[in-house]
Amino acid sequence: MDVFDAVRTVLAVRAYQDKAVPREIIHRIVEAGRLTGSSMNGQPWHFIVVEKRETLRQLGGLARSGPYTADAAFAVVVATEPSRFAVSDGSRAIQSMMLVAWAEGIGSNWVGFQGMDEVKRLLNIPDSFDVLAIVPFGYPARKVGRGRKKRKSLVQVAHRERFGQPLGEG
Amino acid sequence: MDVFDAVRTVLAVRAYQDKAVPREIIHRIVEAGRLTGSSMNGQPWHFIVVEKRETLRQLGGLARSGPYTADAAFAVVVATEPSRFAVSDGSRAIQSMMLVAWAEGIGSNWVGFQGMDEVKRLLNIPDSFDVLAIVPFGYPARKVGRGRKKRKSLVQVAHRERFGQPLGEG
Repeated sequence: MDVFDAVRTVLAVRAYQDKAVPREIIHRIVEAGRLTGSSMNGQPWHFIVVEKRETLRQLGGLARSGPYTADAAFAVVVATEPSRFAVSDGSRAIQSMMLVAWAEGIGSNWVGFQGMDEVKRLLNIPDSFDVLAIVPFGYPARKVGRGRKKRKSLVQVAHRERFGQPLGEG
Repeated sequence: MDVFDAVRTVLAVRAYQDKAVPREIIHRIVEAGRLTGSSMNGQPWHFIVVEKRETLRQLGGLARSGPYTADAAFAVVVATEPSRFAVSDGSRAIQSMMLVAWAEGIGSNWVGFQGMDEVKRLLNIPDSFDVLAIVPFGYPARKVGRGRKKRKSLVQVAHRERFGQPLGEG
């Protein structure tokens, strides 16, 4: 899938088919995270791939905003080492993973945001690390893909040369 | 370009050809930022597209780590409204823009990280906003693209089921 098409069409997917994702595709998704650029090439990230149903259920129980993690084919828990750039770098890696997954027909969503100490205990993540997100992945239960996105209009967020000058002009 | 190939091959580019980027491609890159997913769909971002050489020079002068911004075909200054998710959301949008640009043969790099109050004054960005990054874009001055990346190995950053168990096993 073309990069712009992936960015343009990717949607949050919160319901998954009961269908495994081939291991080589899981690897490719994790590779996308690993190969992402980071500030000063710090790579302060860790990717914990969870496929065991019982652990996915436990993650779903811990993540208030993402109980559907329980039904994912797998989840990647993204933990970061202490770094000024941890949130930024981790977010870039997650964006890469979600786009690469989407190109393979696999949906995902961002669950949680920092903290989540119980997840650290569950997965044996060092206490000094931060859990940035749980990202459940799976084949979408319903047809999605070309849906319209709710986004601010270009004129609301894009500017030419100086803030407040519309990009569409000049 | 395939999404994984873009993630796999994209490199930081800090030297640019003296060659304009067609306006429709600039638009497509900004669209990639605008269409990116964000926490609670907050979209706390603004994209200021700078093409004027004099302003690019001024940005290059203000950005200690990115004087080469002066030579870019254009730059996107990413400013965020106050939000707990500003750094995360803005970073995801920048990742989308850099990947879409790369698929068009255009290199870029992340310059600066938050603060940069002089950039706010230069571009008339509201004081309550934060300048997350300056992202200069342009056709690479030297052939790049399939270069090897310096990244931690998979075993250093990827784990299976629990932190510390290698992904390669089991």
